[in-house]
Amino acid sequence: MPRRHLLLSSSRTAGTGYLEHAHEHIEWLLGSTKKTVAFIPFAAVRFSWDEYEKMVAGGITGHNIVSVHHSSNPVDLIKGADAIAIGGGNTFQLVHLLYQYDLMELIRSRALGGIPFMGWSAGSNVAAPRLCTTNDMPIVEPASFETLGLISSQINPHYIDQHPAGHMGETRAERLAEFTALNPQTHVIGLREGALLKVEGSQMMLEGSAGACLFHQESKPKEFAAGSDLSFLM
Amino acid sequence: MPRRHLLLSSSRTAGTGYLEHAHEHIEWLLGSTKKTVAFIPFAAVRFSWDEYEKMVAGGITGHNIVSVHHSSNPVDLIKGADAIAIGGGNTFQLVHLLYQYDLMELIRSRALGGIPFMGWSAGSNVAAPRLCTTNDMPIVEPASFETLGLISSQINPHYIDQHPAGHMGETRAERLAEFTALNPQTHVIGLREGALLKVEGSQMMLEGSAGACLFHQESKPKEFAAGSDLSFLM
Repeated sequence: MPRRHLLLSSSRTAGTGYLEHAHEHIEWLLGSTKKTVAFIPFAAVRFSWDEYEKMVAGGITGHNIVSVHHSSNPVDLIKGADAIAIGGGNTFQLVHLLYQYDLMELIRSRALGGIPFMGWSAGSNVAAPRLCTTNDMPIVEPASFETLGLISSQINPHYIDQHPAGHMGETRAERLAEFTALNPQTHVIGLREGALLKVEGSQMMLEGSAGACLFHQESKPKEFAAGSDLSFLM
Repeated sequence: MPRRHLLLSSSRTAGTGYLEHAHEHIEWLLGSTKKTVAFIPFAAVRFSWDEYEKMVAGGITGHNIVSVHHSSNPVDLIKGADAIAIGGGNTFQLVHLLYQYDLMELIRSRALGGIPFMGWSAGSNVAAPRLCTTNDMPIVEPASFETLGLISSQINPHYIDQHPAGHMGETRAERLAEFTALNPQTHVIGLREGALLKVEGSQMMLEGSAGACLFHQESKPKEFAAGSDLSFLM
């Protein structure tokens, strides 16, 4: 079965409900028959995993959403699930707990093996090879920066050009240029709010209500509009 | 000799030259006799260590600034220096290279032993116990998140309340609240641009042209003005 991933910049856009902007894409990912979706709530820091599961069940309707924290054996839950969803929040905490529960390699192998995988924000970050290019604050030290590597490019979710006036810190583009300076072989896909990536087999399409900005050490940042074929970044 | 540290939020404030806003405090730190200051340029990513050394030599006048990258043996340079300065840039790259050059423990021991230590931005971040609460993007995986721990509180440099309108990401205060949620015992000092900490022996004073905002899990964020005694955060 060819693999199928849905990677969202964010859980919502201005004026839409939780995962509402992605409904048709979630339908594409999960199909019309009811699936058991193993949900990873680990990125949540300031609200409970129970609350998180409820929000997600409200956003992904017609399927059975089961958070791994309800299972005495999360490994078995992932092994038996029809699909996997990883929610946003803090990427460092997410990666820390994916290693603590020994789920990183298992999720990688199931997602590459063909069961539908979706992530948003921090959940999209971990679909990339490494815990780099996240916007999140390092609030905990994970066992490793190695993440799922479902695609070979890095993702920067919530990509934005804007910058608080008079602030001495770097712009987002400058931060990403620091990454590409140290990692000249790697592309970074800056997904604007509302943008998403759909992977099917060896094809990756940029879709959603916004575009993306691509960063690489050897070229200027390049804009891509929704509808672009980004398979070369797989 | 009682230890003496100068920890700056940033290398400059709006309208001042490199380290210019800190001149009188640098004089307090280094004294009037000419010192050999070992400079750590590792946080620089998009400009050269040579350029960085020049900028710093222009900002810290009357002393001999020697960047560790000029020495075939950085360990010996640090051992023989009269003072140590760590510049800003990317905190992850800084910590990565401090470990790679095996300087973390040595700098800690010399700074606690009493030679003047100063840092700004990422250089102030590493004076805290852990590579947490930095604003920087994780562009590289360091060997460890453990940093100098010259004080027991965390520092957030460039602290700012402002937030781009319409952006779905977190405010700075929300990011720091994520840290304190996971680390309820630890205080975080949000140093506004222009603010600085002066440590002498067991005393720590907040000084400079701006104040700081203190975060802790069990209380609301609390503002402190320049002139406040923050020794309880040592």
